[in-house]
Amino acid sequence: MADDVATLNSLVGEIVDLRSAASLLDWDAAVCMPPGGVGVYGNNSATIRRLAHDRFTSTQLGECLERALRQIESLPPDAELSRLVKVTARDYDRAVRVPAEYIAEQAMATSTAYQAWKEARERSDFAIFLPHLEKIIALKQQYVGFFQPLDHPYDAVLEDYEPGFRTSDIETMFGALRERQVDLARTIQNHPRSEDAFLRASYDEQVMVNFAREVISTFGFDWSRGRQDKSAHPFATPIGTDDVRITTRFDERNPFETLFSTMHEAGHALYEQGVAPVWERTVVRGGASLGVHESQSRLWENLIGRSLPFWEHFFPLLRRRFPSQLQGVSLEAFYHAINRVKSSFIRVEADEVTYNLHVMPRVEIEIALLTKAIAAKDAPDFWNAKMKEYLGIVPDSPTHGILQDMHWSIGLFGYFATYTVGNLISVQLWEKFTAERPDSSEMIRRGEFAPIREWLRTVLHRHGRSYQPRELVENITGSAISTKPYLDYLSIKYGALCGLPAGG
Amino acid sequence: MADDVATLNSLVGEIVDLRSAASLLDWDAAVCMPPGGVGVYGNNSATIRRLAHDRFTSTQLGECLERALRQIESLPPDAELSRLVKVTARDYDRAVRVPAEYIAEQAMATSTAYQAWKEARERSDFAIFLPHLEKIIALKQQYVGFFQPLDHPYDAVLEDYEPGFRTSDIETMFGALRERQVDLARTIQNHPRSEDAFLRASYDEQVMVNFAREVISTFGFDWSRGRQDKSAHPFATPIGTDDVRITTRFDERNPFETLFSTMHEAGHALYEQGVAPVWERTVVRGGASLGVHESQSRLWENLIGRSLPFWEHFFPLLRRRFPSQLQGVSLEAFYHAINRVKSSFIRVEADEVTYNLHVMPRVEIEIALLTKAIAAKDAPDFWNAKMKEYLGIVPDSPTHGILQDMHWSIGLFGYFATYTVGNLISVQLWEKFTAERPDSSEMIRRGEFAPIREWLRTVLHRHGRSYQPRELVENITGSAISTKPYLDYLSIKYGALCGLPAGG
Repeated sequence: MADDVATLNSLVGEIVDLRSAASLLDWDAAVCMPPGGVGVYGNNSATIRRLAHDRFTSTQLGECLERALRQIESLPPDAELSRLVKVTARDYDRAVRVPAEYIAEQAMATSTAYQAWKEARERSDFAIFLPHLEKIIALKQQYVGFFQPLDHPYDAVLEDYEPGFRTSDIETMFGALRERQVDLARTIQNHPRSEDAFLRASYDEQVMVNFAREVISTFGFDWSRGRQDKSAHPFATPIGTDDVRITTRFDERNPFETLFSTMHEAGHALYEQGVAPVWERTVVRGGASLGVHESQSRLWENLIGRSLPFWEHFFPLLRRRFPSQLQGVSLEAFYHAINRVKSSFIRVEADEVTYNLHVMPRVEIEIALLTKAIAAKDAPDFWNAKMKEYLGIVPDSPTHGILQDMHWSIGLFGYFATYTVGNLISVQLWEKFTAERPDSSEMIRRGEFAPIREWLRTVLHRHGRSYQPRELVENITGSAISTKPYLDYLSIKYGALCGLPAGG
Repeated sequence: MADDVATLNSLVGEIVDLRSAASLLDWDAAVCMPPGGVGVYGNNSATIRRLAHDRFTSTQLGECLERALRQIESLPPDAELSRLVKVTARDYDRAVRVPAEYIAEQAMATSTAYQAWKEARERSDFAIFLPHLEKIIALKQQYVGFFQPLDHPYDAVLEDYEPGFRTSDIETMFGALRERQVDLARTIQNHPRSEDAFLRASYDEQVMVNFAREVISTFGFDWSRGRQDKSAHPFATPIGTDDVRITTRFDERNPFETLFSTMHEAGHALYEQGVAPVWERTVVRGGASLGVHESQSRLWENLIGRSLPFWEHFFPLLRRRFPSQLQGVSLEAFYHAINRVKSSFIRVEADEVTYNLHVMPRVEIEIALLTKAIAAKDAPDFWNAKMKEYLGIVPDSPTHGILQDMHWSIGLFGYFATYTVGNLISVQLWEKFTAERPDSSEMIRRGEFAPIREWLRTVLHRHGRSYQPRELVENITGSAISTKPYLDYLSIKYGALCGLPAGG
């Protein structure tokens, strides 16, 4: 047995190396690369990804995997080796359905689509992006064909990002959230608002960035195994468990975005830095799903980073950095201001109450496009109608509407729902932790985050992809992924903030 | 024909992509990577390099190459396609002689040797590095075996860096230079020296870096196809023609190193940025040899950057940046100071007159080690004896002696002679250019460098590796690579500087 598993590990190890190198290339393209480098980056990235796909779907690997699967039959299903082989087999089964030519064609299509999207967004002209979006939809429809039979065509793309979730699960989830969140957002917005102009005063970029770095250092971000840079859009890229890179940006119109997005990306990074060394150079290294990943970023950004105890600790420190900007601002006023609920055009700037309402239109459009219920050219109208319905506003331009996210341009289709899944999981994990540690508010008030980080590492991070998301959440919390805790959390937090009756 | 060449290009293109990605990984490791990333970097780099070697030496590529070779027989030997196929065949013939296991073993040996060298250098303890050096020498001796029969074992390693050069050529070259350069260095050092303490005053790092950037911008370094960062040792890394990265460092004890090393690396970068697009994604992309490459860095750094006309233009600008540091310093005093000749321990800080005298001991040690004339443990004594003989000084520590260069630790054996070859070629090219353009001094005095850059681009850069170094230099200058122009240049320049009779 040792031999087959060793061969499998060595074959898979190479593929993991190639994917890791490809991640570094992506990071470099977003952070370092001079503009002229786009061509060589495109070639290098395409070649490495194609080789990784070719090798992962090779007959040699398939046969080796088959032998390994027979050999683990005698092991307990929860044994590390069993989980390793099973996750590899699951990935393999999906990968072999996709022909190499498709991978190459998609890589080509998305590399030009991304450039077109950037131009379209700059010029706020959907027509520039339209033919590329049509091509990508056609590719996704072709992709669906590789995974037939399916209950719903969208299941094929959803499975890539949120394994074990079906379209019907997402529809049920949205059904439970939609009305409640629309109502809550309306009620709160009709409430008198507190002053928050101080959030948009003039803040020094470097002081803000340094403050954010100190915050995530207390969370436990390991700078010897990671770094932070600037990029057009904040993101986190794991090159490996011991090299996890995050980015941030500074926007003078919204200086606190730097802080909250740094906490957000640090949440992703802590997950990656916490994967157990046993999964190194295997496909198990990484997060269980995008939803589970997002639960970590939202937990640190929102459940901790926008909580009152957090600011009881950090507000005095922040005020010391920005004495003039925050002069006369009370802790309570600051806490209210950073939790202000307001319908806005841009998803990444949305508050906790409206966030999911940005996700739903995107998923609904994707399903409509994939099933040909609407044509790509009609997507902007669909978008605007949904924004009106859920958020009561209509984007003033395609740039602030349908062109705001890069996802489709780089082929990420079926991705958006994971943001909502992440919101739900974050609250379920937090409920579990606070039940186990009734002193959690006290801890945060003292600026003590190690117990939270270590708990997450123990129950979640170290497992990597070795459990499926739903199984993992159930193992940790004892409950299925559910909308109720999230809705309760919103009602209680925002009820208290606005003086509404708790429990909604 | 088109088909075979197209297939060959597509196979080779993949390999070029992999090598380019590996270069990016190396650049990242030196410039960006957090310390924890060294493990994942090692794995990724080894996998990519092994795959590149495997694929380049594959039967498929070999057969395709053979057909392509037959097909170019009907073409003029100078046709682009002929040159492309012939360079590919030359590389292939060398690559197939080296077994994949050897590549893997060397990668492993050098990754630990490099760490050991760093530690040895820090602690100035040769014993730490000794077993690794022994291993590397053993590997190089094994490497020589792959290329038998040879006139001299050292020919095998020399060919990797300076194609077409034999050990006997290097020995002849050193023979012609040694005595003359030793004499010249002694004569000049016995001359009264001008004041140069102002070169080591306190200079602001950022102002110096910005000044250096402005200088190389006037040379024509294309920032849209390149970038500059800080690293422990300055270097230039081409990811591709349109993405060429250079690094610099700032040393308070030697603030002008930033400027001269930036000009040096920009010389390398201009070469890479100037390769014709037709060679993109082929093995012809890049420089003809390390010697030819070094001719470009030395030309910009020394022949231009340490010339009087250059400083007639730039000294007033420099003095505006550093008014207090350069108060009362005349152009002539500055020119003398930056051309001061002085025996020193460190090669990269050596002046034009003593530089080759640093190269010779290294090459002589390598030959002695490879042929087992001396043992690795005796290398430090050999080193010190040669330094005494050529430069009249003995390093005060291994860190300032045999441990100063990283080359051997990363497996670069046979490399050093190319620095001297580069010095020779730089002067031959410069003689040719100045003969064609008698107004060259005037041009430089006006800060006009485009004609020089464009001439180099036309006669040299654009050809990439499509001509062998000796052929290339002869095509451009009408003469073989020779020591005389370099010795004449030194005699005239330093004779004038020291009031010695010109012509030595």
